[in-house]
Amino acid sequence: MTHRIAILGTGNVAWHLARALENAGHIIAHIYNRDAQKAKQFGLDYFNASTGSSLNLSEINADIFILAISDDSIEEVASSLSLPENAILCHTSGSKPLKVLGYAPTENIGVFYPLQTFSKGKKVDFENIPICIEAENRFILDALRALGDSISSKTQEISSQQRKAIHLAAVFACNFTNHMFTVAQSILQNQEMDFELLKPLIVETLNKSFEIGPERAQTGPAIREDLKTLDLQFDSLKSDPELAEIYRLISQHIIDYYAN
Amino acid sequence: MTHRIAILGTGNVAWHLARALENAGHIIAHIYNRDAQKAKQFGLDYFNASTGSSLNLSEINADIFILAISDDSIEEVASSLSLPENAILCHTSGSKPLKVLGYAPTENIGVFYPLQTFSKGKKVDFENIPICIEAENRFILDALRALGDSISSKTQEISSQQRKAIHLAAVFACNFTNHMFTVAQSILQNQEMDFELLKPLIVETLNKSFEIGPERAQTGPAIREDLKTLDLQFDSLKSDPELAEIYRLISQHIIDYYAN
Repeated sequence: MTHRIAILGTGNVAWHLARALENAGHIIAHIYNRDAQKAKQFGLDYFNASTGSSLNLSEINADIFILAISDDSIEEVASSLSLPENAILCHTSGSKPLKVLGYAPTENIGVFYPLQTFSKGKKVDFENIPICIEAENRFILDALRALGDSISSKTQEISSQQRKAIHLAAVFACNFTNHMFTVAQSILQNQEMDFELLKPLIVETLNKSFEIGPERAQTGPAIREDLKTLDLQFDSLKSDPELAEIYRLISQHIIDYYAN
Repeated sequence: MTHRIAILGTGNVAWHLARALENAGHIIAHIYNRDAQKAKQFGLDYFNASTGSSLNLSEINADIFILAISDDSIEEVASSLSLPENAILCHTSGSKPLKVLGYAPTENIGVFYPLQTFSKGKKVDFENIPICIEAENRFILDALRALGDSISSKTQEISSQQRKAIHLAAVFACNFTNHMFTVAQSILQNQEMDFELLKPLIVETLNKSFEIGPERAQTGPAIREDLKTLDLQFDSLKSDPELAEIYRLISQHIIDYYAN
């Protein structure tokens, strides 16, 4: 089914999502931004959509309204909206629950969360991006599932509680992992070496982790309980006591994890 | 220059290295393993080399002897060897210093360390693998550099102290990173979700980290100093106090790192 879609917001999520939806045959009918100029540029340059900075959208000819704005603005914008009768309103946030739309002027609320990070100017293949959908009634859920299926092969129902877990898991798997790289880079730079040197090893290690699963792919001194190496490496970090403690705790967590 | 090479050891490093060297035109002349049967299988099935379990190798017609055995056996095997006059002896370990070969029956000692993890049956492209070489005199160093250049475009001189730093950096960038994936997997499984769900996000995040460097690629609640989210996520980990403490310390380390 082809939808007429209004996009609220003009950031990276808005941009990539609007493009994917249009490519899938939907019509991008309207673009909202509190800055009318931004809405105009986005809507006219790319989508031939009507644009504006008004939250009174009751006259807009669209059946799905997608809030692709910053997490902290969702509640306020949703509660200030006017929408056409029967329109569906959904947000795209990974960290906000469905009920943040509780003050919106409709009960047709849902979540349409593409689980990916989007960068400006970088092409995205939605086909493999999980689309996490949530709604309280079957009608809205079915509509969001069909919308998700029209751009991705990985649409799935994910509760607010599950999205919270995804967000936490992503902090470990993405944010902390990235910081581990930064730490590794510092260690190498202190000895006048470049981070590039480690890349082939990192790529191969992480590929293996994906192939056989991280639990089975674990290597290193901690899982071997190589206490001599653990002590030596811990001692070598003493100039950064915080980092030494991180080293000790993660190593201990690995030992304990595999002991159980 | 074509070398005649003896390989001591029949594990993954021995296998991949011997193949790469033979492909580069060198001759694999001899295979040693303390288990004669293993040496025979390895040497005859693949390399048409002489084989044996004797450490008296003084009659072997080879000019470079490569110790590709477990780290903890290097010192003992090296000190028990007999070698032809003028032969070069090197080990392939990332974590052992050059001087672990100090009791070998030659002063022509070096390190020839391919900075990669090797799995059985998985093809390896040596061209992009850094070969870390070390030796105390120029003659040996030049020979090892030429040997490295014959299989890789990334041969570089790396001191024992630098190799120690590489080893530590790899613990953070590979071992700890992998464990972060395991933790993420557990968090998802606790809410009946699969690790697969996060993979597209992880791949994109790590690609970005490689493209623009991890320092600039950092995202997440810690670098935003989003204390509300940090508190909520810390609290949600209270069933595993060790993990909660890891969360707190890494987040704090990120905050401090970018504050300086």
